[in-house]
Amino acid sequence: MESASNDVDGVPATEMSAGKEAPSSEPTTGAKKGGGKADRNALKAERLAARMAAASLNSKVVDDPLACNYGDVPMKELQSKEISGKVWTKVGDLEKSLDGKVVLVRGRVHSVRGKGNLGFLVIREAGCTVQAVLTVGEHVSKGMVKYASQLSKESIVDVEGVVTVPNKPIESTSQQVELQVRKVYCVSKAVPALPLNIEDAARSEASFEQEGAQFSRVNQDVRLNNRVLDLRTPANQATFRLQSAVGQLFREFLVEREFVEIHTPKMIAGASEGGASVFTLDYMGQRACLAQSPQLYKQMAICADMGRVFEIGPVFRAEKSNTHRHLCEFTGLDLEMEIKEHYFEVLELLDGMFLHIFNALNTKYKKELDAVNQQFPFEPLQYLQDGCRLTFAEGVELLKEAGIEIDPFDDLSTETERRLGQLVKEKYKTDFYVLHRYPVAARPFYTMPCADDPRYTNSFDIFIRGEEIISGAQRIHDPELLTVKAIEKGMDVKAIASYVDSFRYGAVPHGGAGVGLERVIMLFCDLKNIRKTSMFPRDPSRLTP
Amino acid sequence: MESASNDVDGVPATEMSAGKEAPSSEPTTGAKKGGGKADRNALKAERLAARMAAASLNSKVVDDPLACNYGDVPMKELQSKEISGKVWTKVGDLEKSLDGKVVLVRGRVHSVRGKGNLGFLVIREAGCTVQAVLTVGEHVSKGMVKYASQLSKESIVDVEGVVTVPNKPIESTSQQVELQVRKVYCVSKAVPALPLNIEDAARSEASFEQEGAQFSRVNQDVRLNNRVLDLRTPANQATFRLQSAVGQLFREFLVEREFVEIHTPKMIAGASEGGASVFTLDYMGQRACLAQSPQLYKQMAICADMGRVFEIGPVFRAEKSNTHRHLCEFTGLDLEMEIKEHYFEVLELLDGMFLHIFNALNTKYKKELDAVNQQFPFEPLQYLQDGCRLTFAEGVELLKEAGIEIDPFDDLSTETERRLGQLVKEKYKTDFYVLHRYPVAARPFYTMPCADDPRYTNSFDIFIRGEEIISGAQRIHDPELLTVKAIEKGMDVKAIASYVDSFRYGAVPHGGAGVGLERVIMLFCDLKNIRKTSMFPRDPSRLTP
Repeated sequence: MESASNDVDGVPATEMSAGKEAPSSEPTTGAKKGGGKADRNALKAERLAARMAAASLNSKVVDDPLACNYGDVPMKELQSKEISGKVWTKVGDLEKSLDGKVVLVRGRVHSVRGKGNLGFLVIREAGCTVQAVLTVGEHVSKGMVKYASQLSKESIVDVEGVVTVPNKPIESTSQQVELQVRKVYCVSKAVPALPLNIEDAARSEASFEQEGAQFSRVNQDVRLNNRVLDLRTPANQATFRLQSAVGQLFREFLVEREFVEIHTPKMIAGASEGGASVFTLDYMGQRACLAQSPQLYKQMAICADMGRVFEIGPVFRAEKSNTHRHLCEFTGLDLEMEIKEHYFEVLELLDGMFLHIFNALNTKYKKELDAVNQQFPFEPLQYLQDGCRLTFAEGVELLKEAGIEIDPFDDLSTETERRLGQLVKEKYKTDFYVLHRYPVAARPFYTMPCADDPRYTNSFDIFIRGEEIISGAQRIHDPELLTVKAIEKGMDVKAIASYVDSFRYGAVPHGGAGVGLERVIMLFCDLKNIRKTSMFPRDPSRLTP
Repeated sequence: MESASNDVDGVPATEMSAGKEAPSSEPTTGAKKGGGKADRNALKAERLAARMAAASLNSKVVDDPLACNYGDVPMKELQSKEISGKVWTKVGDLEKSLDGKVVLVRGRVHSVRGKGNLGFLVIREAGCTVQAVLTVGEHVSKGMVKYASQLSKESIVDVEGVVTVPNKPIESTSQQVELQVRKVYCVSKAVPALPLNIEDAARSEASFEQEGAQFSRVNQDVRLNNRVLDLRTPANQATFRLQSAVGQLFREFLVEREFVEIHTPKMIAGASEGGASVFTLDYMGQRACLAQSPQLYKQMAICADMGRVFEIGPVFRAEKSNTHRHLCEFTGLDLEMEIKEHYFEVLELLDGMFLHIFNALNTKYKKELDAVNQQFPFEPLQYLQDGCRLTFAEGVELLKEAGIEIDPFDDLSTETERRLGQLVKEKYKTDFYVLHRYPVAARPFYTMPCADDPRYTNSFDIFIRGEEIISGAQRIHDPELLTVKAIEKGMDVKAIASYVDSFRYGAVPHGGAGVGLERVIMLFCDLKNIRKTSMFPRDPSRLTP
């Protein structure tokens, strides 16, 4: 692939490899030497290595006195040869305060343009961009401008230059300075024909609607098939930094409140949430399931005196749900805690936690939210500083007032949930609220029934913009009641025997909840498709990349 | 099970259920009423519910004026009935400064002893213990002492009492105060015959060797089969708090250095580390593998401009290795980062990180380390504040000097590693050191060869007490060289095509490492068996609990 763009300054690659610099172009590989075991693989490898040695030659041009200021970095130089003490600056850190300073950056060729004695490279790093200008003169030769102009998009380059501040604001790059280039070296070349163009992938819906716009749309499948490229857009760079932030904020909040992080097995003997949607595998001759949640194990950790626990880990669901909000593998933020008296203790913790998360995102991650907003505009999340809590019955009533009659003892449909979200927003001015005291039919067998009305349970869901992000409840800590409820729900009691037995050795009342990480980001930023918030999503038809 | 210990104060359970308090004993379940669909399950459930209602009756005795100060808490009271505003104190927080104060604790009956007008309960919470004394008098009746004396071990109780400070130091409990009991209620009863005794499970090896000691040893399999009980020992309580701490310290260190936390798929299309030891499953009709590491995906995240990433998640290995240090599922702490010039950039980060982790454990987690030490005595980890780094060749030389000749271009055996650990400790006074520049044969195909000698690689292992806890390297970021190396190692190049392709769109030089979380704790505390540091371990013969 490298040879494709190796025809630099009119010197064909083949000529270069036979040229004067050949002695320094030892193969960098450990391909077997001497004809001893010259098997097929070794031969193949040697041939490839020879081609590479040719390709990685520094493409200096003999008659350019500034030749040492540009060119391809030979592979050898990138194999931990030395520590030079050079200092690199991040593109995102290039600010006006650096005016006049010489800086060195490593980034991608985002776009490239040549025009006589001028060359323009836009360099991108982690979604931030800066314009680098090559002007033929003391530091820059014509050959150098030509070399730079022929760099393929997305190649990695080291650029040394002087920071300057233009008079006008720069609209085409994120950074408000330019670099007057002195040196440019290519560290890694991208193939010239990319499966998708980052600029296309980064365009907002609005830009397609502009007059005369003739851009290519990059559809979701092309994006996901070439995720490594798709993830390079500013919005995606920001999305996964926001995802990381939510994880840290979640943990930080819990660790401060004496939660212990646990890691429970994902290969388990029986289905953790029962039923059909479970992946199975052969475990050393036994049938095993992939955990559909850490539910049983986090409760066992409570029975093991851990007091308050949380786990962040993959959750596996073999559901054939091709929707905007289902994945076959997602990241669960799970917690479980001893409660002294009431499941409101869990709700208070969750209310406080999400307030902490939302406030921090809105203050400390403004730059990331702006980057998402630019491509996918969204209304900021409305939420109350002191929470909003409705009972299921109150929810049913609210729907009834709006003319929607539903079975008050059955679960809500996705459509009804969304409608209820709108009604709650109108009435309480919040996109984030808690619905609690769900009817028995809507909850799993291990949910504690209400003390005052056995038709309801001590359970809750939490919603953002009318979609569920959290399910939780007080759990049944009594083995007999648990057995009663399992039988009522038609469970195979034998299959959950070791779980039920955990409660026979004394068990504290406890409750907990599970949060879907991808959903939190999707709904906070109103991204409308969960595949946008999973780095390498898994759905019924996607197992790669 | 509850009925087994329900015979309180001489009133048999059956009598109680038919007694005066029966009207208040409504079934707490939602078992279907009315003979409509009286199917088998509903019938079973009703029968069980009726038994439970009997069992959860508060066991008050009519002729005891202090009867309200003790008894079993009915289930109904534990179903989030109300928020009383009561304040609970943790057993671990019971200190001399609380002398004279009335406190309420919830904990387990660790041990129990009755003696005429006196009753003694040792209450345990999260591995901490306190003695609660019942003395017949103003607040305590004979019936109450009898009730308390008959509580089964491991039952959960609420105890209200006055804190007192005895004259002599208390050897039998962790807390140096006592509680003069006023009220005691049982929240959850344990079955009287436990599969293992917590006191036995918590005993140190030394105590077995004491003169005349006649204790039962609890073997590893009994422990793991009843892990929920085994985890309640002070050493285990501490072990998993230490594990949680290592996770937090790891993350904290990386997040401060601009690492982004990622979550990559565990169900993947091909084996991530190649070869036999992979679990496979059916993924919606396609063959899928469980990820043996996040290796390929974390590198793809680097190719996707994430700069520096880490992941904490399960790692699956279908190895039939029944050793003290192998698990079929463990927790990987993985990181990957752009490097500018040298894999030493990764090593510097790791050196700093482990120094941070070790120093924090030794200062902030002294209590936990002491708890482990008490049952499993270990020498504190010796480590240098400025690290210790040896090349593989220097390691070979050190072994040679000690009379051990090995092939200098092959991997070290476990035995040789341990021996080298001893030699390094003797010479450099450290249990923690880095061995780098491994020979090609010892590393996977994606490892970058050394610039100056293709027989070696830019790779490293890190050891604690002579056992490997980390493997890492600079990776090959060039698709052609990667292909050469894959062929040399006999890999199926087609199977890794999408991984190799990730590097065709421009790739920065990068490196990273993977840490085994369970091994770090095992070796830091010299626990000698990895099953001790995995909450619910998975090995070739264990899939439950």
